[in-house]
Amino acid sequence: MTGIDGDTSEDIAEAICLKGGRYLEAQVQGSKQQANDGTLVILAAGDRTLFDDCQSCFKAMGKNSFYLGEVGTASKMNLVLQLMSGVTLAGLAEGMALADRAGLQQKDVLEVLELTGLSCPLIIRKGKAIIEGGFPTNHPLQHMQKDLKLSLNLGDQLEQPLPLTASANEVFKHAKRLGYGDHDTSAVYIRARF
Amino acid sequence: MTGIDGDTSEDIAEAICLKGGRYLEAQVQGSKQQANDGTLVILAAGDRTLFDDCQSCFKAMGKNSFYLGEVGTASKMNLVLQLMSGVTLAGLAEGMALADRAGLQQKDVLEVLELTGLSCPLIIRKGKAIIEGGFPTNHPLQHMQKDLKLSLNLGDQLEQPLPLTASANEVFKHAKRLGYGDHDTSAVYIRARF
Amino acid sequence: MTGIDGDTSEDIAEAICLKGGRYLEAQVQGSKQQANDGTLVILAAGDRTLFDDCQSCFKAMGKNSFYLGEVGTASKMNLVLQLMSGVTLAGLAEGMALADRAGLQQKDVLEVLELTGLSCPLIIRKGKAIIEGGFPTNHPLQHMQKDLKLSLNLGDQLEQPLPLTASANEVFKHAKRLGYGDHDTSAVYIRARF
Amino acid sequence: MTGIDGDTSEDIAEAICLKGGRYLEAQVQGSKQQANDGTLVILAAGDRTLFDDCQSCFKAMGKNSFYLGEVGTASKMNLVLQLMSGVTLAGLAEGMALADRAGLQQKDVLEVLELTGLSCPLIIRKGKAIIEGGFPTNHPLQHMQKDLKLSLNLGDQLEQPLPLTASANEVFKHAKRLGYGDHDTSAVYIRARF
Repeated sequence: MTGIDGDTSEDIAEAICLKGGRYLEAQVQGSKQQANDGTLVILAAGDRTLFDDCQSCFKAMGKNSFYLGEVGTASKMNLVLQLMSGVTLAGLAEGMALADRAGLQQKDVLEVLELTGLSCPLIIRKGKAIIEGGFPTNHPLQHMQKDLKLSLNLGDQLEQPLPLTASANEVFKHAKRLGYGDHDTSAVYIRARF
Repeated sequence: MTGIDGDTSEDIAEAICLKGGRYLEAQVQGSKQQANDGTLVILAAGDRTLFDDCQSCFKAMGKNSFYLGEVGTASKMNLVLQLMSGVTLAGLAEGMALADRAGLQQKDVLEVLELTGLSCPLIIRKGKAIIEGGFPTNHPLQHMQKDLKLSLNLGDQLEQPLPLTASANEVFKHAKRLGYGDHDTSAVYIRARF
Repeated sequence: MTGIDGDTSEDIAEAICLKGGRYLEAQVQGSKQQANDGTLVILAAGDRTLFDDCQSCFKAMGKNSFYLGEVGTASKMNLVLQLMSGVTLAGLAEGMALADRAGLQQKDVLEVLELTGLSCPLIIRKGKAIIEGGFPTNHPLQHMQKDLKLSLNLGDQLEQPLPLTASANEVFKHAKRLGYGDHDTSAVYIRARF
Repeated sequence: MTGIDGDTSEDIAEAICLKGGRYLEAQVQGSKQQANDGTLVILAAGDRTLFDDCQSCFKAMGKNSFYLGEVGTASKMNLVLQLMSGVTLAGLAEGMALADRAGLQQKDVLEVLELTGLSCPLIIRKGKAIIEGGFPTNHPLQHMQKDLKLSLNLGDQLEQPLPLTASANEVFKHAKRLGYGDHDTSAVYIRARF
């Protein structure tokens, strides 16, 4: 249940099925908090009967599970969502850095943001982490960078240009280089600010 | 009440105050829908007495108005928020384009996204506009590009690197070049996809 | 003698050496013109005795051959040089596109450029190809994009941020998507201009 | 004779001509070394008779002077060339940083590069400055960043996307933020490497 690319998932599926096994690819979207609350989102693909058999297990982990089709689909869906989260977080970090330089109070930015159409749990949570500055790990920064890299590989295979994702990947990579790979994704702020 | 930069606002303030007038800088965050619903967010800065005098007027437009301090502050706050929205939308467009190329259903992406921490009115609304493909103007794309440009100018003055914003600005500029300046910001998808 | 990454080269070397063979990694820098003139540059790494044995062959191809050390070194050197060429060409294409939009004559740009410190055979040759607009294949665009991708992979392994390379890769990928993969690298101009 | 944008040049021209004066816009391309050698390139536009009258003066400074047409043309030509130089230098810095991380000798990179089509005085000179690490000022980094910014403004006016230039501008801005504004342009390597 870790983020991998669709091709790897297909290779695993083939190996298992050749031995007579059943394979269900499953990806999880959600934070540590959502894991504690049992509100994770499960993205599954592959063997439909195995998906049905896993229902009680999935129910315990999250309220929602999706069966998306053939093996590889769940991984791709996960990468698309990670790409969006990664770009959004890198943008949040830039905005917060600019706010600070411009003499604005970052808590004011967040207070206003909460009243706009951009208000979502991820942005608010990460915005607070940026203000507090501790970056306790909810989702490790290096996992996000790995997912951005896998998204770019998928884009490369499909000849799909992804300039924002490429830019975000470099920024997260730089944060990793600066020693924040094991910190929370919100530590991308360090790279944006300094 | 249109998006301008802080310096321009300060120049206007000076001209008005020299003639004995009072100046209140006011920026609005919100969509056409929020305007209809009277839930716009008003960001004001400058003359505090004028802000107080305008309260009944602001109340009619939006539930929330903020007094942020000296002239220029409201413009800067607005640019920070526009930067975050612009980067997020360009990332949404890239994700939706990649999903389409990868054979995923875009409505599935949005359905899953609604259950994650990234679910916010802006992303859901623009995601639906991308799926429908009509791009009726809620917020003109060229206004977003102008705001991104002003954010970059602010970053330049303050020596604040903004790689994601710079990348988003080029993408919105390209969409404008392709003839989508008067369409909705969600038309940035056209540039991402083709 | 095609562009590959260092890891692949090491895998090949291991396979050959295990069977008792000798392996010399060899990369070539140069254009079709340089191949015709016998002035290619050969970058080699791996088995030193094999390098010495190949001297007469290398001499026929190019005036200069370098022995760089252990297997993988030649591939890495080649990727570093390709990265620089790719970024430079994407910058040339942007400059030529901006010149055209600004009403300048592109041949004037090239004439002035030839007198500056930036004058080099690659830029002059590709600049002329952009002006002529035919893009006959000297070095296929998709090979350049592949090399940029391999450079980014190397950067990823080494946690080295490469924002310009990442940006150039997206631009070349876009040109490939537009159908110019088999054309000359100078066709990246099409993406820059339209 | 400093780098400005075309609009500013036109404003100056108008002010001078209204008072009955003649105006010749003149931009210089070249390094401190070229200035000492009297091999600067002079780009001029505006009053043709004044250009002719200045010939003896221009001859003393450089071997080549170009008359490019109406006021603004010389500034635009200069920005196009600066854009190309800036992107190329940022690419050189990335390549040298990657080489270092990959365990290659930077002097080997430069030695090989000198034999390829990318060999030009600017790259070789700046490459040596990177290896030596002193960055004595030949062309101040902040001037390059200003020119990149002006190029982007020109691109914005003409709706010309310039993703590489935008990326290079952020990198030079970051180097300036790190305190290298007064150092040579080659100090952009510091940002690329750390």
